[in-house]
Amino acid sequence: MAAPLEFYFDFSSPYGYIAAQRIDAIAAKHNREVDWRPMLLGAVFKIAGTQPLTHYPLKGQYSTHDFKRSAREHGIAFNMPEKFPLPTQAAARGVYWLKEVLPAKAVPFIKAVYAAYFVDGKDISSPDLLADIAAGMGVDRKELLAGIENPEIKDKLREVNDDAIKNRGVFGSPFIIVDGEPFWGADRLEMIDRWLERGGW
Amino acid sequence: MAAPLEFYFDFSSPYGYIAAQRIDAIAAKHNREVDWRPMLLGAVFKIAGTQPLTHYPLKGQYSTHDFKRSAREHGIAFNMPEKFPLPTQAAARGVYWLKEVLPAKAVPFIKAVYAAYFVDGKDISSPDLLADIAAGMGVDRKELLAGIENPEIKDKLREVNDDAIKNRGVFGSPFIIVDGEPFWGADRLEMIDRWLERGGW
Repeated sequence: MAAPLEFYFDFSSPYGYIAAQRIDAIAAKHNREVDWRPMLLGAVFKIAGTQPLTHYPLKGQYSTHDFKRSAREHGIAFNMPEKFPLPTQAAARGVYWLKEVLPAKAVPFIKAVYAAYFVDGKDISSPDLLADIAAGMGVDRKELLAGIENPEIKDKLREVNDDAIKNRGVFGSPFIIVDGEPFWGADRLEMIDRWLERGGW
Repeated sequence: MAAPLEFYFDFSSPYGYIAAQRIDAIAAKHNREVDWRPMLLGAVFKIAGTQPLTHYPLKGQYSTHDFKRSAREHGIAFNMPEKFPLPTQAAARGVYWLKEVLPAKAVPFIKAVYAAYFVDGKDISSPDLLADIAAGMGVDRKELLAGIENPEIKDKLREVNDDAIKNRGVFGSPFIIVDGEPFWGADRLEMIDRWLERGGW
């Protein structure tokens, strides 16, 4: 099987959420898997000289309109959270901990966290909420909470972030790397589909 | 016939160039016309708190790669100009002057100016070059040069720019407004196509 699609995303990214609902189907169509790599846009913004979309005049208003429109077009439930953006370290660390100890739970956890934020408007920066979500899928609350505070897991997230920015050119969310070819944005999924269809060029 | 697609673009915008090669076909498919509205991104950047794509770390490199890839995918000739970006007041004024006095020449002029820049790498900030292009399509050189300096034409460009930013929410190029609905970016042409197909929602 060819290399997985490397799917970089921040849990506080509406377009990351939208793409997360669609990437599996595109990968499956081309016999690929998805490697889910939560990261922190805060670090990216500093290096890339950018800020959250909604913080820009004009572009901010457009983006908020477009989040809803893009979700609607693809039949994806979406409600813009009142608290936005949120810190997502805990959620991202939860994923890397699950990837180590209970890998089969990592993707369901990602989807549940995204839904908690962008459908139900819950505060996914709260470790307690993350523990509730994990408990709902049979993961021990306390173990998840300890995992989030585990220094090795903290290091892992830092490494992924540093590598993404310094070596992979990642500067936004979602950012998908297909056999070394970078694609930025939920609206590039069709381009990825065509790219894989043609075998790249 | 329904309202035209309002196509805002800057002559120094690679994605504006790419969209300019494709917008006619999408409009024609839905029995729409295109209202071509050159504008100046310089004014936008100040108000929107942004800068030319290629000036950002990381995003700049990606964009340069993506300009070429996007053009290639659609079979559009493209060469990244060495001088980039360029001032585009003269070219934009040339268009508004043609729209007033020789409207049938306006769109061919737009396409020729874009090709001179993004295919042949010519300096389209030069009024002389613009006059050469106009002369090639049977427009009097001197009249075009005078049109570019005409105070009413200068005012017209300022009005379009101010209206775009203040009243229409335009913050980038290309920016296409379809029956009041805003779409930003060459990669949203497919979304516009689907939007028109469905009759909007």
